[in-house]
Amino acid sequence: MEWDHLARELSVQTDSKIVLLVIDGLGGLPWNDKTELETAETQHLDRLALRGCCGVTDPIFMGITPGSGPAHLALFGYDPLHTPLGRGILEALGSDVEVRQGDLVARGNFATLQNGRIADRRAGRIPTAECERLCAKLNAALPVRPGTEVALFAGKEHRFVARFRAAGLGDALTDADPQKDGLPPLPTRAEAAGSEKAAAIVNAFLDDVVRVLAEEPAANAALLRGFSLQPTIPQMQELYKLRPAAIANYPMYKGLARLIGMKAYPVGAETRELFDTLEAHWAEHDFFYVHFKRTDSAGEDGRFEAKVKAIEEIDAFIPRIEALKPDVLVVTSDHSTPALMKGHSFHPNPFLLIAASALPDNTGVFTERDCAQGNLGRFRSIYAMPLMLAHAGKLKKYGA
Amino acid sequence: MEWDHLARELSVQTDSKIVLLVIDGLGGLPWNDKTELETAETQHLDRLALRGCCGVTDPIFMGITPGSGPAHLALFGYDPLHTPLGRGILEALGSDVEVRQGDLVARGNFATLQNGRIADRRAGRIPTAECERLCAKLNAALPVRPGTEVALFAGKEHRFVARFRAAGLGDALTDADPQKDGLPPLPTRAEAAGSEKAAAIVNAFLDDVVRVLAEEPAANAALLRGFSLQPTIPQMQELYKLRPAAIANYPMYKGLARLIGMKAYPVGAETRELFDTLEAHWAEHDFFYVHFKRTDSAGEDGRFEAKVKAIEEIDAFIPRIEALKPDVLVVTSDHSTPALMKGHSFHPNPFLLIAASALPDNTGVFTERDCAQGNLGRFRSIYAMPLMLAHAGKLKKYGA
Repeated sequence: MEWDHLARELSVQTDSKIVLLVIDGLGGLPWNDKTELETAETQHLDRLALRGCCGVTDPIFMGITPGSGPAHLALFGYDPLHTPLGRGILEALGSDVEVRQGDLVARGNFATLQNGRIADRRAGRIPTAECERLCAKLNAALPVRPGTEVALFAGKEHRFVARFRAAGLGDALTDADPQKDGLPPLPTRAEAAGSEKAAAIVNAFLDDVVRVLAEEPAANAALLRGFSLQPTIPQMQELYKLRPAAIANYPMYKGLARLIGMKAYPVGAETRELFDTLEAHWAEHDFFYVHFKRTDSAGEDGRFEAKVKAIEEIDAFIPRIEALKPDVLVVTSDHSTPALMKGHSFHPNPFLLIAASALPDNTGVFTERDCAQGNLGRFRSIYAMPLMLAHAGKLKKYGA
Repeated sequence: MEWDHLARELSVQTDSKIVLLVIDGLGGLPWNDKTELETAETQHLDRLALRGCCGVTDPIFMGITPGSGPAHLALFGYDPLHTPLGRGILEALGSDVEVRQGDLVARGNFATLQNGRIADRRAGRIPTAECERLCAKLNAALPVRPGTEVALFAGKEHRFVARFRAAGLGDALTDADPQKDGLPPLPTRAEAAGSEKAAAIVNAFLDDVVRVLAEEPAANAALLRGFSLQPTIPQMQELYKLRPAAIANYPMYKGLARLIGMKAYPVGAETRELFDTLEAHWAEHDFFYVHFKRTDSAGEDGRFEAKVKAIEEIDAFIPRIEALKPDVLVVTSDHSTPALMKGHSFHPNPFLLIAASALPDNTGVFTERDCAQGNLGRFRSIYAMPLMLAHAGKLKKYGA
């Protein structure tokens, strides 16, 4: 990707401030001829659309439905197809597990072992409280092996995250999971030189689990998959010379933001807390990523009306951003989540940009279809970052 | 190109069905202010435009006029700049020559040899019937060399296709053609290891031709260029998990489709036979490429009115596609062929997509200029395939 080279060369530190408001899963599909966004009363967003210029963005490229990880990376200017983000690390970020450079993490399941075979890969979907008890038991009872720290973090039902801390771990490891019931447990195997030590530590851990949980009725073994090290991704400070802040209340988004160098503030579940935090730390940063989740959650659940309400809820907070007078304000989404599809989709994101140097277009309503007619056109999300930096006066000229 | 990796990873087999109708050379330029498509009465295409969403596509990128081979490859999701398609293989496909894995093919000219020099590279443009006679004579009289089969297939006037069948042939061969009259015949030369055997076989063949045709008055030698093996291109089954069918009545399009794994049905010259075939094989496939040639032929001939009529002819068959209720219907073109330019052009193609998950736009008339205002925007043809697969529910999410 050429952008990261250009970014290092051209970006300059300035006092101007950028706010990127991500309304997660914003784009939708029509129910009675109107999408969620077309149905919602959004006087503030519409007013911004009239003042600014609009377009639509593809997180990866046309037709590709992205997960939240790749979709956010693109918005922050990282090519999602060339930025490694293992499943283990995403799960760890999503569970608020602290991951340091060199740590190896994996997604885990508690499972039921019977007569040497995995009888149930999910241990009968034990309750979350049971999972928490088992993780605590293992964290206390696992044998101590010098130079190695293993910690388990309970997730929902039978799920957990395992973190291995030791020197010289690699993550070229096969899944330690037979994938089907009725098969014997499968140890992990190093797929490349440099991961043998990690394989040995993981396999010793799996044996320890079976010993410690021998008397448990349902959950007496562990399966692990998606081994990943903390990836080394260039930091936003280094790429863009920004002092970036993440204002989000879901662990995954905070974790991802931390991974690329943002300071992630603790934020409660109420939407107004996003803006309290934004105001409280306004002086300390020059880039603010504000993440609003409820639109996506409603879309995932297929609740059209709830998504409309969530859009109206976030619209009401727009004046609090405007009052701070950011030099650049972008309102967009990471990906679309049409309530009619009950999941992420490949449809492009509405995109709205306000800045003194923006050429206003004729978009007078902030909707998918109006943005598709906007003067910014249709572009890949990865260009959002150069566009924001440029309008904030943070990019020098390329060449003479 | 990252798409082929993503396609393998994300595509899933489903029962949904896609129809891609290619109206060859559809885009045009105005005569009395209206293009061919704007002049034509197209009630069905206009109705589809109203229901679906539209855009325009560049086969390669802006300004590049493509041949039919690269333009079609792009529509099928193959990067035309990184998919090898030698001239020899295209000529062979266009002549309906059967080409197997390992066969070496080349474009040939009959030429006139005088006093050891090529006096006329086209042998006075001998009539096609004469070319057919010469090919038959050579096929019968060429000396048999063990382990090698050579066959000639007559084309128009002085042109033919030569096919060499033997084990271990390479295609890194220079053209056996001095390119200018008045020069001596030029043997081919292996440009890389692995093509020496092919060079020897080709040069022996060229000597044989001179011996067999020694008494011919005009055509007494052969020139060969564009040597190519059957390329190994990933198959659509493997890339997209599709069971694809090609419904086309010109050899080039059927041959190209076969090269990437489509089943190509025999179809007669009448336009209604395209749709008879589509209906007859509807249950057997989940991707149907339907190719209509007359628009391009009229454009190539510079016959504006004939192209208008051809567009109206294909429009009348749209209801037969609709009656089959495909999950995704795309109507577009491989490239533009404005009658005013009497040839392929670099102008983008009108593109129209109908699917339950498509967000309808305001395009109410299917024309070049209306599509250019459509919500799909302007994009490279290579994204048509991910877009069709996505709308057909045949692509999983990328990343978590």
